[in-house]
Amino acid sequence: MGQRIAMAVGMAMAEAHLAATYNKENFPVVDHYTYGLCGDGDLMEGISHEACSLAGHLKLGKLIVLYDSNDISLDGPTDKSFTENVGKRFEAYDWQHILVEDGNDLDAIHAAIETAKSEKDKPTLIEVKTVIGYGSVSQGTSKVHGSPLGKMDAENVKAFYAFDKDKKFDVSEEVYEHFRNEIIVRGEATQKEWEELFAGYQAAYPELAEQYAVAHSGDLPENWAKNLPTYEVGVNSASRVTSKETIQALAKTVPFLWGGSADLSSSNNTMVANEADFEPAHFAGRNIWFGVREFAMASAMNGIQLHGGTKVYGGTFFVFLDYLKAAVRLSAIQKVPVTYVLTHDSVAVGEDGPTHEPIEQLASLRCMPNVHVIRPADGNETVAAWKIAMQSKETPTVLVLSRQNLPVMPKTKELAEDGVAKGGYVLSKQQGDKPDGILIATGSEVNLAIQAQSVLREQGKDVSVVSLPSFDLFNRQSAEYKESVLPKDVKKRVSVEMGASFGWERYVGDHGASISIDTFGASAPGDTVIREYGFTVERVVSVFNAL
Amino acid sequence: MGQRIAMAVGMAMAEAHLAATYNKENFPVVDHYTYGLCGDGDLMEGISHEACSLAGHLKLGKLIVLYDSNDISLDGPTDKSFTENVGKRFEAYDWQHILVEDGNDLDAIHAAIETAKSEKDKPTLIEVKTVIGYGSVSQGTSKVHGSPLGKMDAENVKAFYAFDKDKKFDVSEEVYEHFRNEIIVRGEATQKEWEELFAGYQAAYPELAEQYAVAHSGDLPENWAKNLPTYEVGVNSASRVTSKETIQALAKTVPFLWGGSADLSSSNNTMVANEADFEPAHFAGRNIWFGVREFAMASAMNGIQLHGGTKVYGGTFFVFLDYLKAAVRLSAIQKVPVTYVLTHDSVAVGEDGPTHEPIEQLASLRCMPNVHVIRPADGNETVAAWKIAMQSKETPTVLVLSRQNLPVMPKTKELAEDGVAKGGYVLSKQQGDKPDGILIATGSEVNLAIQAQSVLREQGKDVSVVSLPSFDLFNRQSAEYKESVLPKDVKKRVSVEMGASFGWERYVGDHGASISIDTFGASAPGDTVIREYGFTVERVVSVFNAL
Repeated sequence: MGQRIAMAVGMAMAEAHLAATYNKENFPVVDHYTYGLCGDGDLMEGISHEACSLAGHLKLGKLIVLYDSNDISLDGPTDKSFTENVGKRFEAYDWQHILVEDGNDLDAIHAAIETAKSEKDKPTLIEVKTVIGYGSVSQGTSKVHGSPLGKMDAENVKAFYAFDKDKKFDVSEEVYEHFRNEIIVRGEATQKEWEELFAGYQAAYPELAEQYAVAHSGDLPENWAKNLPTYEVGVNSASRVTSKETIQALAKTVPFLWGGSADLSSSNNTMVANEADFEPAHFAGRNIWFGVREFAMASAMNGIQLHGGTKVYGGTFFVFLDYLKAAVRLSAIQKVPVTYVLTHDSVAVGEDGPTHEPIEQLASLRCMPNVHVIRPADGNETVAAWKIAMQSKETPTVLVLSRQNLPVMPKTKELAEDGVAKGGYVLSKQQGDKPDGILIATGSEVNLAIQAQSVLREQGKDVSVVSLPSFDLFNRQSAEYKESVLPKDVKKRVSVEMGASFGWERYVGDHGASISIDTFGASAPGDTVIREYGFTVERVVSVFNAL
Repeated sequence: MGQRIAMAVGMAMAEAHLAATYNKENFPVVDHYTYGLCGDGDLMEGISHEACSLAGHLKLGKLIVLYDSNDISLDGPTDKSFTENVGKRFEAYDWQHILVEDGNDLDAIHAAIETAKSEKDKPTLIEVKTVIGYGSVSQGTSKVHGSPLGKMDAENVKAFYAFDKDKKFDVSEEVYEHFRNEIIVRGEATQKEWEELFAGYQAAYPELAEQYAVAHSGDLPENWAKNLPTYEVGVNSASRVTSKETIQALAKTVPFLWGGSADLSSSNNTMVANEADFEPAHFAGRNIWFGVREFAMASAMNGIQLHGGTKVYGGTFFVFLDYLKAAVRLSAIQKVPVTYVLTHDSVAVGEDGPTHEPIEQLASLRCMPNVHVIRPADGNETVAAWKIAMQSKETPTVLVLSRQNLPVMPKTKELAEDGVAKGGYVLSKQQGDKPDGILIATGSEVNLAIQAQSVLREQGKDVSVVSLPSFDLFNRQSAEYKESVLPKDVKKRVSVEMGASFGWERYVGDHGASISIDTFGASAPGDTVIREYGFTVERVVSVFNAL
């Protein structure tokens, strides 16, 4: 509910961006309106506010939303809970608002659409007054909102519309003819016309045409990965910073990559340097300012990606996942490969306290089907995670990134690319053939596990360290690979992650232990919080030794 | 972000409701304004739309929100993303909008508040133009939004305000005196005045006064549970229906229980029969129409409960948990014992398809600290779950209820109350001393486990059936109790739940198996979906036998 509007806004953003990027004189290769449909419920939802306020700000003049205004929602008449002046509200958003008094007056709807098209600088909401369940004996009431009509009333409706009473589906010959003789013919002609236009465009602007074709295929340009950084031991950067560096590199080789943040770009590091902002005066800009609108951002990203022609990302704090989660679900259900750049990934955030410290967010996302959830441990893992996001064709990716610095660890330069793609890997092997135990960690805690490994080694315990940045990718690996990383007969296992323990039993097993956080966070300097919650070398060592 | 406004709306709702319920001529025992503070970011958030549209509809004239309008958000000037006409938007919500041009003009703010108070039928938004970081060299820019001033600029600011430059905290004697001689004195006088008023009220209206006192203590009336239903074998009702019957019983004994739904009361069954709606003309009504505003509902519930004096619940579909989750998190962090009535809890929903079928929602909630997540198996477990919700003082409760019918099972009448309170219990014992295995299920799947138990028994396998309606309550039990339910040496365990397997390893262990759903749902009649996803007696039996 409500997300359809935000996805329409995203589609209109994509159209505006692509038109500004590709169109040349005499070659309007991208030029279409975006039509949306919504009801009363959509306009009650918060996301309609976020998305439509943004659309008005962006002056998306080619966005036309038809509002089925029937004064009825599931529980009854909307005047029980929804009496705002929708027209005035949308005018406040700098939309054009047109009222069509009678939804059965097709000429009036047509005229409204023409008026909408003639307004170039404002999106248009066409409010069409309709009667819900028109033709039913219960028309105009909530009885026809969520329940079937029933046999008798279905017969009334069939009679009212002069449908064949014996058929379950009845489409008149006139409709078939209209589709055959007009719609299909017109569609074919339009397509042919566009193909000719594009052929001319290819001749005149071969590079842009090639870029357009690659972008719309869902593939990446050749050499897209050539500028990607690698990190040497000694570098100590937050993964939000190495993500920033990765974005800069990708932006150069993938001209159709764009994105932004829900007003946290200076924290999420999502801006592309030396690129313009996506603004009404300059829709070719690649830096999107979504405003403090996490949910609309995520949903608009879905619309942008569904539109095609670009690869989009968006950022906010990881803890605000809860504000946009319903859109991640639609990314996953719709198989839309958008990228979420979610930073400030743990209690290490520190002073901002429990409201800003993710605890259950990792677990709450790992249980969702068809989402890559990746929490990289250092710069090299961050680049590897971005590679997965860039190449994903049917799965959204959530990058879970740190605010605090993460030292680059030995061997990630060699191992991370393949290891992250497999979801988990032995980053630091035991010395003997079989480990005495396994320390499993993600993100910022991998380095802690590496340190604990050294101490345990001094104590004569020869453990391996597994970096497990992505549960979902690891789960897809072969039994052999999984066994090579987490051998079944190695029962002493400790997981280390600054988040809920929920779900870790899959990897630590009946005999293992999880160092985790199952309460809310606290406000103090980051280092203090980390220490107080027990994320120290000493604790990892002692938990292992207690197994 | 944004939730503060919705909580303020909830507090104003509580005040209106309590005033209408308790106040008598000459005894205005409940009579206060609710003041809220918000910034630009709050007003960009979708929840501000949901909550403020509702507040305008409800004509909450005693709600006054001061809007710190400084044209700056974290990333820069708000005109990069937020150019809506806020005043016009709030007028569209039927609010009064007052502009104070200069936030340093305290007289103008005072006058605005007086104007706000004089408007009885509309909430008021007082937009106060301010300069962010006033006194800093970076005033009026985003530099002073999210970062510390730094030593030098802090000195500027101290000089600007004539603070002692050597002190970290400097409160002038004048302020102390104002608090000592005016604020404290006035507060004590006001409290005394109210206590005298309430003493008179107690004499004149002893029953109402008693109700008021109990409600504000957080306790329940004596005999609050006396009308609660019990269910006999043979009854076959959805848990959303037995929840409805429980609500009706509670509404009679607990006069300060109230609640509603986000436009799904006819599905969630949250209405109290023979009670009025909570409406501007009748704020004493106990049925709240929240509209299609899940997030604002949840956040307003937090505000209502924080206000005190009532016990509140709210309903929507379980899958829409994702729309309101950020408010559940604040229920949990703030220790607010509200009750969420979330129905249509599985793929059994059927025809509405994947967008309406919860999969990962249970796991995504079980990992959150301080939330009771309870999925009852039949009518008796539903009543027991409501009892926990009613008695909870510091923990919100999420009731996860079925759309489809659930037969009452043998022994829940005797065992459910204690068993649900403990989170899990042996509902159907093995025949011998020790079971050969354990079937663990929740909600609608418990009955499936009972049926599978019979078939396994015929095959000579003597298993127990554990009903595990609440992971969080079960986890709190003693090691002895847990061992009595899930004995460590019984390794053959199968969990049965129509949701993600994530997190079930804690109970099934290394040697067990989970019958679960780790993909999205599908659209078909409910029975078909259930069968196709493998929730059949045959499958439970065969998975057990394969262990």
